[in-house]
Amino acid sequence: MKLTILGCHSATPRINTNPTSQVLEIKNHMFLIDCGEGTQVELRRNKIKFSRIKHIFISHLHGDHYFGLVGLINTFSLLTRETELHIYAPKGLKEVITLQMKLSNGWTKYPLIFHELTSKTSELIYEDDKVEVHTIPLDHRVYTNGFLFKEKENERKLDINLVNEANINVAYFRKLKQGFDVENEDGVLISNEKVTKDPIAAKSYAFCSDTAYDESIVPIIKNVTVLYHESTFLDKNEALCIVTKHSTAKHAAKIAKKANVETLILGHFSTRYNGYDDFKSEAETVFDNVLLAKDGKTFDF
Amino acid sequence: MKLTILGCHSATPRINTNPTSQVLEIKNHMFLIDCGEGTQVELRRNKIKFSRIKHIFISHLHGDHYFGLVGLINTFSLLTRETELHIYAPKGLKEVITLQMKLSNGWTKYPLIFHELTSKTSELIYEDDKVEVHTIPLDHRVYTNGFLFKEKENERKLDINLVNEANINVAYFRKLKQGFDVENEDGVLISNEKVTKDPIAAKSYAFCSDTAYDESIVPIIKNVTVLYHESTFLDKNEALCIVTKHSTAKHAAKIAKKANVETLILGHFSTRYNGYDDFKSEAETVFDNVLLAKDGKTFDF
Repeated sequence: MKLTILGCHSATPRINTNPTSQVLEIKNHMFLIDCGEGTQVELRRNKIKFSRIKHIFISHLHGDHYFGLVGLINTFSLLTRETELHIYAPKGLKEVITLQMKLSNGWTKYPLIFHELTSKTSELIYEDDKVEVHTIPLDHRVYTNGFLFKEKENERKLDINLVNEANINVAYFRKLKQGFDVENEDGVLISNEKVTKDPIAAKSYAFCSDTAYDESIVPIIKNVTVLYHESTFLDKNEALCIVTKHSTAKHAAKIAKKANVETLILGHFSTRYNGYDDFKSEAETVFDNVLLAKDGKTFDF
Repeated sequence: MKLTILGCHSATPRINTNPTSQVLEIKNHMFLIDCGEGTQVELRRNKIKFSRIKHIFISHLHGDHYFGLVGLINTFSLLTRETELHIYAPKGLKEVITLQMKLSNGWTKYPLIFHELTSKTSELIYEDDKVEVHTIPLDHRVYTNGFLFKEKENERKLDINLVNEANINVAYFRKLKQGFDVENEDGVLISNEKVTKDPIAAKSYAFCSDTAYDESIVPIIKNVTVLYHESTFLDKNEALCIVTKHSTAKHAAKIAKKANVETLILGHFSTRYNGYDDFKSEAETVFDNVLLAKDGKTFDF
């Protein structure tokens, strides 16, 4: 699982700070999460192939999370894309994009499929044999979802020497990987655990931005491998969170602790601060394993 | 008169090429012309104060000419702008912007005034005591206007020594600047040309992008100081102009020659070319005074 931060700052794009966008590489998918202005240039800068992006998840319809989307859709057209593009976003985005396409007389030649989100409870919005994506309803000034990306349980690993010694036919390997006991060539039942190893643990990633401090998300993100939680402000500016419905670094850390996540990444920093080390140290007073997002940074998990 | 090119490339924004946007400084105005994605960052890079922009002119509703506008409008709000912003653009843009504001629950606190353009003949769209702006109907795949920015005739200049020698009361200086003969303190009529000099010639700037080769614009832009004319392609790719309704460098030069302009600036280059010297030399086979636009370049006239 690999996460590339294209932008992790709040509000307006500036020369050296980009609004929210990130790419999650998981089980051979390249999921684009949010798409602030300038995202297509950041994708190029980070050498991410446009053709590998087939699913885009938009948290909410504040500009710093989606103003780059219409340009990206347009660029895909100019590059003569043919493969489907799925967009998961709050209701309303489809209307914006189709209006802009109508005015430019420029419909996409590839299938553009909108999945409009309106539910206020967590729902499964994507699933295949390797991965699931669920919404995480957040508490912000407009309708907002975070997203939970979960690998499905991996298969057990065969210990090929032990399997051969046990004289098991290759036709049973699939069942062994699925955890079943099987009969060998001599009709003897072989216990699964004797010839297989535990699978690699399934990984998970929760993206939670933008949101006020909200404990109701804890059950949804319980035990995730990585939590990206917004921390627009420091604790000393906590008062600003009330009107803006944002979080502090300490809020993010409290959620990480309650949800027992492995790693917390902080992001969506207000550009009012010079440097973000204080965000890390503030969060570390509550939770141990804290990392800072940074435009252009890649995390491997 | 000063022109700053923020972006002069066609189609999609890339790491080192920006879509169309430019700032014309004329008679203390800062007119923003077109606003492709990334324009607000280029304004910062070129140290242009956001507060000085009060009028934005959008040629047409292809994304590379306006996808940066909604973000700029949004940023003005975040910066607590209070002064009016006037937008001159094809009908439809107001609907796009207001829909996006509605969805973000973020109306501007400053007056945002749309001037929707629908006329297919040239019209006066802005005027004050120093400057006029007229549309230039262009021939493109969607409804498109260029813009003609004209300084009004400047006042005559007083030769203060001759004025004093002629014993003219200060109360008549204004009439002298306007070209009238006046009586001096002794009741003698003084001929205007004896005590004043010719004014600085009024300057003018015509922005023509995007457009196919179209001689019908020649009477509108006749004798302008500077013509910015798109040249998406070179002559060797002229066939592409038919479908796309764009121009070659030679087309632009022909228009410049027929309109007897002083200086031609080429821009809106397709990113298919490596370097643009061929555009200059191609245009120079037809017209002498050719300059190339470049992102971040400033021209003083």
